[in-house]
Amino acid sequence: MTNNNFSLGIVGIGTVGTATVKLLEKEIDNVNHKSGKNIIIKAISSKNFSKCRDIDISKYEWEEDPEKLVVREDIDAIVELIGGSDGIAKKLAYSSIKNKKHFITANKALIAKHGYDLNKSILDADVSIYYEAAVAGAIPVINGIKNGLISNNILKIEAILNGTCNYILSDMTNNGSSFKESLIKAKELGFAESDSTFDIEGIDSAHKLVILGMLAYGAKPDLNKVYIEGISSVSSEDIKYANRLGFIIKLFCIAKIENNKLDFRVHPSLISSTAMPATINGALNAIFIQGDSSNKITFIGEGAGAYPTASSVVSDIINAARNHKLKNNLIFLNKKLKYKDIINRIGKYYIRFIVQDVAGVLANITAILNNNNISLDSVLQDSNKGEEFNYIIVLTHETNELDVNNAINKIKSLDTVLIKPHLIRIENI
Amino acid sequence: MTNNNFSLGIVGIGTVGTATVKLLEKEIDNVNHKSGKNIIIKAISSKNFSKCRDIDISKYEWEEDPEKLVVREDIDAIVELIGGSDGIAKKLAYSSIKNKKHFITANKALIAKHGYDLNKSILDADVSIYYEAAVAGAIPVINGIKNGLISNNILKIEAILNGTCNYILSDMTNNGSSFKESLIKAKELGFAESDSTFDIEGIDSAHKLVILGMLAYGAKPDLNKVYIEGISSVSSEDIKYANRLGFIIKLFCIAKIENNKLDFRVHPSLISSTAMPATINGALNAIFIQGDSSNKITFIGEGAGAYPTASSVVSDIINAARNHKLKNNLIFLNKKLKYKDIINRIGKYYIRFIVQDVAGVLANITAILNNNNISLDSVLQDSNKGEEFNYIIVLTHETNELDVNNAINKIKSLDTVLIKPHLIRIENI
Repeated sequence: MTNNNFSLGIVGIGTVGTATVKLLEKEIDNVNHKSGKNIIIKAISSKNFSKCRDIDISKYEWEEDPEKLVVREDIDAIVELIGGSDGIAKKLAYSSIKNKKHFITANKALIAKHGYDLNKSILDADVSIYYEAAVAGAIPVINGIKNGLISNNILKIEAILNGTCNYILSDMTNNGSSFKESLIKAKELGFAESDSTFDIEGIDSAHKLVILGMLAYGAKPDLNKVYIEGISSVSSEDIKYANRLGFIIKLFCIAKIENNKLDFRVHPSLISSTAMPATINGALNAIFIQGDSSNKITFIGEGAGAYPTASSVVSDIINAARNHKLKNNLIFLNKKLKYKDIINRIGKYYIRFIVQDVAGVLANITAILNNNNISLDSVLQDSNKGEEFNYIIVLTHETNELDVNNAINKIKSLDTVLIKPHLIRIENI
Repeated sequence: MTNNNFSLGIVGIGTVGTATVKLLEKEIDNVNHKSGKNIIIKAISSKNFSKCRDIDISKYEWEEDPEKLVVREDIDAIVELIGGSDGIAKKLAYSSIKNKKHFITANKALIAKHGYDLNKSILDADVSIYYEAAVAGAIPVINGIKNGLISNNILKIEAILNGTCNYILSDMTNNGSSFKESLIKAKELGFAESDSTFDIEGIDSAHKLVILGMLAYGAKPDLNKVYIEGISSVSSEDIKYANRLGFIIKLFCIAKIENNKLDFRVHPSLISSTAMPATINGALNAIFIQGDSSNKITFIGEGAGAYPTASSVVSDIINAARNHKLKNNLIFLNKKLKYKDIINRIGKYYIRFIVQDVAGVLANITAILNNNNISLDSVLQDSNKGEEFNYIIVLTHETNELDVNNAINKIKSLDTVLIKPHLIRIENI
């Protein structure tokens, strides 16, 4: 570049793309001042030119084929906002780097799947990849790990990374509603998409978690090795009993190294009602990072939404323009650690049993737990007024998941136990 | 530099200096890997070579005069950990930049007083200044504003920036102790220094606040224009009545722009018990940043201590070594805004009166408040068993500080009012 321009090719003008263009238009003086460059939207490309949008895209050059943007001499960075782990997004990422364009993206699926190799491919390149928007929307946690906390060995990451799930669980907690009722409400209020499977089943959280794990531990992301359990099996009774016992339920993401193995998991968890994560309500995200010298650092903010996400995209654009290359040597600390299987988890458990209202059931259950080395912290038996079944809630002391599974398998075959017992892990924080 | 070394001259081997050297020694492989350089402690300088320390400094070159480090060809960065707004620290800062050395510091007094001009002086330099450790210890909030949130216009910063004060107020809240008792405890536990005036009176918080304000608004720091009130006048009764009315008391720092004026203040504040800051207990720090597109982003962590502070110092060293220059065009957005006087604050107030136990006192007080346009949200009268005086606590609706002052001046001259009424501002968050 001989001039002082920093020219963008923006691919994908959906919700986040529209907000990004709007933000750049509104704040162009500030953006130029902060970057020391003239930031220019040189051309845009999207599936559908004539789709109804909140911005006038006709003033920008339109490129039908996004691949053509990548080879243009007059473009310095590709801003990819289409999504998807493969297909066009992946192609654009690699061809951007090959063609010496910075690559800026909000695409968590892409970075979760190919981020490790993409980070490798920029090691000797003059350009970089930027994906602050891919994890936790507006929260500058990628920046935090890569820069502010870089001196630390990260000991543990705990996080609430999906606003949809957190909204639903908060609503169930505050209003006593069922999972289905809260999901419908979340959709009505725009906190959940019409097809919310990715969010509800924990996949979205897992994408973000493995990106953080890649940065923190040099762990090559592998979603198949991460234990992922969503929130659709959490009932309003679980929420109620958890509360009564001093806990709230969160979809909790954990990435830590234990005995030289990567312990990465996403699952509903009981968290003490007095712990910080209990205060993270509604659609918020939160990340708790335990560094060896920093100790615990907490980041909280909006993890989704057009403008919070565009906030991170435009920050990345400014950082790319001022040539602030966020290379990531971090990830090549990789000690080729193996992933730990969830079956080896050692911890406490909440187990909910639905049983016939007959004598001796509790005795049978506790006997089996005892035979499987599981000692109990508390037991709560609740008769279900007018119904012929009771709830029994058990909180265990620390034990291992294999023993818990064995016990549950035996207990569920008891005649008096009506459905498969439901287990939720308790996490200390 | 033709070689791949990045050599440090460390000045000041006190608590933070010792932790910084220890961290660099322990983590040298990681630090080198992360920075892509060989980080070398080339020489150190401190007031006293033979002082008893937890590290063996005899293996490093000793330089009696720190100024000599700055002119050495074989040093790339000066790490200043001596403190003080002027004197050696200031000299070192300017001479480092003049001699093309990066300047890394944990010195909030220096940056609060000279940071603006120092930021100016690096604009065309090949080196930069780094001061992540100067604000909120381990919390990467400087990095957050300069990078992750750079796309935003910051609308408001609210913060708890002094661990000593927060420890004392938390202890008073949890244990019902007096300010003096909690201060003694804080000293015994190492949360307060033997002379804690700077902390207690809000000066330390104000230093950090004006640094954040400089970054966020381009506001040239001027401590004389910032309203600063410490916590020594907060009584255990204030804490008790505030709690009873649904509030906790925090030493709250605020930096915002209101009607084109800089509203920067540090003072004890009533915060709703259900708001996030109420959960920030003990020696923690927290910063709440309201960006126009990010919305509110919260950072929480340890704001002091040897290793949390060294965490930020070493992160800055790594970032300087990988030539990740954190220049700050931000501050030159400066619109030469004037500071707002606290007398123009509009908000709610808590006022504590100590009055004689006679009839009609409350009527007199409320009449004066009413005459000064102050309407009341709630009134609490508490008789002090066995004593001849009562407490009257008033929470006002929104009003302006001038009216409140006028009313208080009239009320304090009533014969039935025993001491000057005590006012604490209520902050909505």
